[in-house]
Amino acid sequence: MNKIVNSIKALAALLSGGMGSTLSAQVHYPEGSQQVFKGPEQYFSGDVQVKMVFPENPSAHYSGALVTFQPGARTAWHQHPAGQHMVVISGTALTGTRDGKVIRFEPGEAVWCPPDLDHWHGATQDQAMQHLVITGSKNGQNVIWKEKVSAAVVGNDSAMRNQDE
Amino acid sequence: MNKIVNSIKALAALLSGGMGSTLSAQVHYPEGSQQVFKGPEQYFSGDVQVKMVFPENPSAHYSGALVTFQPGARTAWHQHPAGQHMVVISGTALTGTRDGKVIRFEPGEAVWCPPDLDHWHGATQDQAMQHLVITGSKNGQNVIWKEKVSAAVVGNDSAMRNQDE
Repeated sequence: MNKIVNSIKALAALLSGGMGSTLSAQVHYPEGSQQVFKGPEQYFSGDVQVKMVFPENPSAHYSGALVTFQPGARTAWHQHPAGQHMVVISGTALTGTRDGKVIRFEPGEAVWCPPDLDHWHGATQDQAMQHLVITGSKNGQNVIWKEKVSAAVVGNDSAMRNQDE
Repeated sequence: MNKIVNSIKALAALLSGGMGSTLSAQVHYPEGSQQVFKGPEQYFSGDVQVKMVFPENPSAHYSGALVTFQPGARTAWHQHPAGQHMVVISGTALTGTRDGKVIRFEPGEAVWCPPDLDHWHGATQDQAMQHLVITGSKNGQNVIWKEKVSAAVVGNDSAMRNQDE
């Protein structure tokens, strides 16, 4: 019941914001109010959980989600029309681009993926990883999915130390 | 040296983005590359550490920071011209508005503070709190600071259960 009331409040706040008025209240997105789902087989390799944290709104054209990858799990290739920040919460994150470059980043560190650049992200082979992603939206779209990332592209951990450090 | 090289790369990427070209590479903000500072006495009560995680850029007009409040610590009253999302990482967060409403939120939960609304945020009396704030920017400004929050406004923990749940 509380969840429904909160959802209605959030919706009302968003609608009033959409009509150009100034919001008069903060909006709380409590546990259980946002969607949680298993990363679908089509777009992820391995076991991935996506937990939405906050939706985009008329003033902030980006959403937040906590994404947890079990060891060895990763996304398919994809790009974001308005870019994406990834902030590691726990474990070590990997993210790669078509040029073969792989960035390895740790809790408290971020990587910015600019708009329209193909990338993948995921965990190392030996440890789960959770990151908070802040994903921009452009004309209502925030991701364009492509094919899965082969094991050869991901390589193994020992080959994946940061190439820029 | 690596930090300097990374900073130059990040700057170059931002500059090229600012000139309207598509970025060709992801940008890593490694540990130590972003500003870390103690929350200044003028704007904070108690012991607060602010650690920037990522800066705004030409495609994403918002920055990210991990802010850690020791027990009882809090911000002064302030508002954000382009709003702010707060996502709790550890501990229990409190945030209040001029109407006297205080929202209490937990790890994995978020609160959206709409543009131009006075609020404060901080830890409970008995526990440290860390949250990741994603703060929008409008015409280069992301915060307007006001007076400090009195202890009477904050009250004590037992009076601060969520009033909307």
